[in-house]
Amino acid sequence: MRKIPENLSTIIREISNFVLVTHIHPDGDALGSLLGFAEILESLGKRVFCYLEEPVSGLYDFLPNCGNVHTEIQAVRQFLDAADGQVAGVSLDCGDCDRLGENQLELLKIKPFYAIDHHRAHKEYGDFRWIESDCSSTGEMVYELALALGADVSRKCAINLYVAISTDTGSFRYESTTSRTHIIAADLVDRGVRPDEIAGHLHENFTLPRLKLMELVLSTLQLYESEQLAFIRVTNDMFEKSGADFQDVEGFIDYPRSLRSVKVAAFIKERKDSQISVSLRAKGECDVAEVAQSFGGGGHRNAAGFRFSGKTVDDVHAEILAALRMSLCH
Amino acid sequence: MRKIPENLSTIIREISNFVLVTHIHPDGDALGSLLGFAEILESLGKRVFCYLEEPVSGLYDFLPNCGNVHTEIQAVRQFLDAADGQVAGVSLDCGDCDRLGENQLELLKIKPFYAIDHHRAHKEYGDFRWIESDCSSTGEMVYELALALGADVSRKCAINLYVAISTDTGSFRYESTTSRTHIIAADLVDRGVRPDEIAGHLHENFTLPRLKLMELVLSTLQLYESEQLAFIRVTNDMFEKSGADFQDVEGFIDYPRSLRSVKVAAFIKERKDSQISVSLRAKGECDVAEVAQSFGGGGHRNAAGFRFSGKTVDDVHAEILAALRMSLCH
Repeated sequence: MRKIPENLSTIIREISNFVLVTHIHPDGDALGSLLGFAEILESLGKRVFCYLEEPVSGLYDFLPNCGNVHTEIQAVRQFLDAADGQVAGVSLDCGDCDRLGENQLELLKIKPFYAIDHHRAHKEYGDFRWIESDCSSTGEMVYELALALGADVSRKCAINLYVAISTDTGSFRYESTTSRTHIIAADLVDRGVRPDEIAGHLHENFTLPRLKLMELVLSTLQLYESEQLAFIRVTNDMFEKSGADFQDVEGFIDYPRSLRSVKVAAFIKERKDSQISVSLRAKGECDVAEVAQSFGGGGHRNAAGFRFSGKTVDDVHAEILAALRMSLCH
Repeated sequence: MRKIPENLSTIIREISNFVLVTHIHPDGDALGSLLGFAEILESLGKRVFCYLEEPVSGLYDFLPNCGNVHTEIQAVRQFLDAADGQVAGVSLDCGDCDRLGENQLELLKIKPFYAIDHHRAHKEYGDFRWIESDCSSTGEMVYELALALGADVSRKCAINLYVAISTDTGSFRYESTTSRTHIIAADLVDRGVRPDEIAGHLHENFTLPRLKLMELVLSTLQLYESEQLAFIRVTNDMFEKSGADFQDVEGFIDYPRSLRSVKVAAFIKERKDSQISVSLRAKGECDVAEVAQSFGGGGHRNAAGFRFSGKTVDDVHAEILAALRMSLCH
């Protein structure tokens, strides 16, 4: 069990109204920890308002209580105006205030504003923060918080927290998975989570256009340096041919990365706005953060990205290949 | 913690020599439970001989102690001859004595012969058996056995048991995953298992021919009945083009199965011996066992298979499509 910051317990004990937010383009950990925390606060008698800039995507619309999320900043203002007593703002899983979206300045005016996050590269914002960078997920932190507060974790709440943990650990596969992660998962299963149902929602919801796009993208695979460098690409032409959306490319880079010989995988993505974005994934000791920085991007040792404007996919390919060849660890 | 059969504890206490076997074409649970159990017996001062019909495949050659496995039946005979005192035979994860391989009759002559297995459709063989059909994996049973025996579970043993559990639960995603499964995983992580390292071995060891084959197989996707039925196929031509082996198709059926609309996925596989084998996978309440039986095959509700001789891939496709259309649950 983790120690919860004193000021977080105090705020939860003393304040009756909460606005919860998370990062834009929310993933399973963002939504699961937000919805799980909302229910925990409600079980403690709090009034809770959940705000997202965009509606919950179809991938996550099975999450319990996801209908309680509001997407109108006007509704936040109304909640603040109507609140009986003080209102606290809490961000879940958001490592950078820029990722709070276009209303970030207005949201950060809610005082006190508390950030709960597990990102290693968390950039401080708001009034207070609880950051556990060795925690698998913000969902895991919310579970620990519920335990510390003596709050009830219902089946619905357990599903949200399980989705948060399961998505952010890649089904308990990533380095961040600890024995504590499994102990928490065990308790969530005991509270009614059905792992196979969750996996069905998360992993068996491919669309036909997405599968078609995957086939097209796989056919672009190119390997260099004794198959240590792998490149794939997606072009606007492929989106058109397959009928898939930009969000459908999620996870495709795992295929070249899964090749035994590959140390670094690069995914070059042509966007409708004619920008080109690039994702890099490295295995083991290889570090792609530096290469990303040299192109004006950022990220972690094993996962980084950056963008180009006014270049062709082939030009970008050649530039990155040259940079990766230079930096390739041996 | 599970109750261990009295006669199993007695045999382990009183007998000093053990021959361990598992099913042919062993998967992660077969190998992990075998190697894990071997180490547990050795830690109790037993002499252990592990026999497999074929060498451990490259996919699993990272398993600790996998070099201790013998593939010569002659070596089993020598172990039996040289043994000081009684020898017990134990099969791990083998639901049917036919799957013990071509030396099954000779192996089953080892008395007593004990079967430890978790398959629902276990067909009784040998002298004694411990079957836990609600257990996620034989690896989980071996862990419980170690606990009951007060045996040490070393880091190496923990890795073998973790691989057993993780592969047979699809990374903690299948229905068989219980809270106990996670509790055991937590303990194995505490004993030194690195989930990311294991995942790297299990999921990042694609070969280029396999990825090429996957692209070719995906391009054969056909959908029927409002996209509820999905067909993919692999032909000898594709094996030649890609340079991949038959074992490389493992897991490909998960792609059509992952389509949101699909209720049943069929994978038609042309073999070198001109036989054609078919795998069916169903989601939710759909039952493919009956269709498989009607073609002389077998399996479970959600996973079944069968074979044809002397037919073309197109004929087989048409026959199965007709049968699935008839049986499709609505």
